[in-house]
Amino acid sequence: MSDLGTKARELDSADELAPLRDRFVLDGTVYLDGNSLGALPANVPDRIADVVRRQWGELRIRSWEESGWWTAPERIGDRIAPLVGAAPGQIVVGDSTSVNVFKALVAAVRMARTDGGARTDDGTGGTRDRDEILVDATTFPTDGYIARSAARMTGCTLRPVTPAEVPGALSARTAAVLLNHVDYRTGRLHDLPSLTAAVHAAGAYAVWDLCHSAGALPVGLDEHGVGLAVGCTYKYLNGGPGSPAYLYVRRELQDRFDSPLPGWNSHAEPFGMRPDFEPASGARRGRVGTPDILSMLALEAALEVWDGVPVEAVRAKSLALTDFFLECVVAYVPDGRVTSLTPVPHGERGSQVALRCADAGEVMKRLIERGVVGDFRHPDVLRFGFTPLYVGFADVERAARVLAEVLR
Amino acid sequence: MSDLGTKARELDSADELAPLRDRFVLDGTVYLDGNSLGALPANVPDRIADVVRRQWGELRIRSWEESGWWTAPERIGDRIAPLVGAAPGQIVVGDSTSVNVFKALVAAVRMARTDGGARTDDGTGGTRDRDEILVDATTFPTDGYIARSAARMTGCTLRPVTPAEVPGALSARTAAVLLNHVDYRTGRLHDLPSLTAAVHAAGAYAVWDLCHSAGALPVGLDEHGVGLAVGCTYKYLNGGPGSPAYLYVRRELQDRFDSPLPGWNSHAEPFGMRPDFEPASGARRGRVGTPDILSMLALEAALEVWDGVPVEAVRAKSLALTDFFLECVVAYVPDGRVTSLTPVPHGERGSQVALRCADAGEVMKRLIERGVVGDFRHPDVLRFGFTPLYVGFADVERAARVLAEVLR
Repeated sequence: MSDLGTKARELDSADELAPLRDRFVLDGTVYLDGNSLGALPANVPDRIADVVRRQWGELRIRSWEESGWWTAPERIGDRIAPLVGAAPGQIVVGDSTSVNVFKALVAAVRMARTDGGARTDDGTGGTRDRDEILVDATTFPTDGYIARSAARMTGCTLRPVTPAEVPGALSARTAAVLLNHVDYRTGRLHDLPSLTAAVHAAGAYAVWDLCHSAGALPVGLDEHGVGLAVGCTYKYLNGGPGSPAYLYVRRELQDRFDSPLPGWNSHAEPFGMRPDFEPASGARRGRVGTPDILSMLALEAALEVWDGVPVEAVRAKSLALTDFFLECVVAYVPDGRVTSLTPVPHGERGSQVALRCADAGEVMKRLIERGVVGDFRHPDVLRFGFTPLYVGFADVERAARVLAEVLR
Repeated sequence: MSDLGTKARELDSADELAPLRDRFVLDGTVYLDGNSLGALPANVPDRIADVVRRQWGELRIRSWEESGWWTAPERIGDRIAPLVGAAPGQIVVGDSTSVNVFKALVAAVRMARTDGGARTDDGTGGTRDRDEILVDATTFPTDGYIARSAARMTGCTLRPVTPAEVPGALSARTAAVLLNHVDYRTGRLHDLPSLTAAVHAAGAYAVWDLCHSAGALPVGLDEHGVGLAVGCTYKYLNGGPGSPAYLYVRRELQDRFDSPLPGWNSHAEPFGMRPDFEPASGARRGRVGTPDILSMLALEAALEVWDGVPVEAVRAKSLALTDFFLECVVAYVPDGRVTSLTPVPHGERGSQVALRCADAGEVMKRLIERGVVGDFRHPDVLRFGFTPLYVGFADVERAARVLAEVLR
């Protein structure tokens, strides 16, 4: 066994999170695509069978009360809360990430416009509204498309800037800023505390997309004063394909959260069937229509794998995994064949490694054939995601070794 | 056995749809709440187990291609299509009904404003935009709330009118009209062909909510020239609690469908990850974010119970069931204890019967205790839904008989 193979065994032996792997259904492959679709938690199949056969099949409509269907969006939100550093009562689960980006951005613009400091002298003696949304120019595309629609529908202009450019781009016109905590392509971790502070200092609201960070590293929403955030649940939270997304609205802002999608589930009295809309208080205000129960309760079961798992320990292992992967890549892969796009400093790294590589599409195909599953991002990126709950150091060493074989 | 009991047995014997009951998981209760949550189709549990254990658990991300996850929204839309009188390629499944109402109404306003005839002389020498949305004043509340948001975000005013008042309320200002095919409370069926024609004649677009008609009666979307329609799938389509809704965009309008929720799934090239949005052609333009696969594939299995079932036969049985229920109620229930809110003419009746009744909440509670499950609608309505696929005439006779016992 190589030195790195020995080191991998030692690291696995010392890994306190290693037993968590048994909470998932895995096979012999090295699954480094949990940042696209998390692996199946072992308790999900039986839970879903119960939801389908007993809750739906036998109890039918009684389950809205008796099986807790009606309150699932807030209850499951409270399960996600500790993973992103939020106290209970601020997260609601439902809809897709795209739909939640729309809710959050429109609400952010409306809040910015009704704030005391939201109007500024424009130099001509009048005042003007906040009329600009900044969006991360390197964002996962859907956020940009939705931001453009939110801008169009609120009379704003949309201005794409890199996260580094945000502080310089903020002005008295800025209403909202849509940012990714971790870049989906490169794995770069952005500085949430300082960017949030800068946006707030300009009198605007930041909306954070946590898709690639929640479940992989501490987010600290409450601590860092974040107002609005969204995220998906099918990556590091292992909720299943297309599982419902979530929306965080900071407690102090909830009474001012003015949703563009005020469905009956966000009404103060949903079963009053009243023609006039009166928004619910609390996180429920972020709901829209009838919650998608099968997917939502699969997610609830999936979140139970986090019981007793501190997210700080997950972060420590995540960094150890990506460090070790980079070390193995340097040791094994012929010089010049790959270039890492992922930042070296821990403070700038998420839980993935992106390698630029000629013929990346073909290389990934051959990796998958040999049991190492990552993904390919157009045009030249090999993307490897490291889920600390079920990826071990021997997996990492094997992945780098197989990559080197493929590239030779 | 009473005369009506004998008649029920005869009607059941002659019912060609009676064997369909075996396609569902049912017990000894008379389930007349399929217009709230359809019963569990017998093939769903095994299908979902396969989706969870094999497609997600074993194939993982490969399932986006290999298990047809990516194309599920259009494929399942095409399964719904014949039930609502639509040719393939016009329906996409996903999101909640509320979210789809928002998409459809905003798109309708945008289309009305870009139509050749959309501008009219306002008598002062200028022109004015279409700036009014009409909404069914008796609608299920969420449609009204969402319509108000769509109006606010498109610079329209919202005007609630009863469906009967719509023809008189239409004007050159009307951009869009949101209508229910069947009233959720009374069960009244509205005249889709003539209302659609009137709305179109005024240069506006009708958006039809089919929640309480699809799966219970022929809708004829293509035949009647409907432009936009939405519906849920958890009532007469038996898709499961909170299963995804659908959006119909008539083929001729698809190139002009300008969604307020342009997520990456509605991009012409979703995996191009391009910063600029270019809408997909066809029904896919109605998609938003990543589809909710577990709920969606449960719905797909549920729709298989319709194989070989003509919706015209379902409608004939539905009318026979509601006729017979009203006959039994008249025969059994003491005079003056209930009043039907459901229209007598077949052309004005959906697939439910609503009875006004003193102490309706308490009465429904006692009905449910005795195995007859309908629901209560505030303040004084007993609501009974008749799903022709699994409700028989003996069920109907028993429901009326138990109601009479409770009321005595």
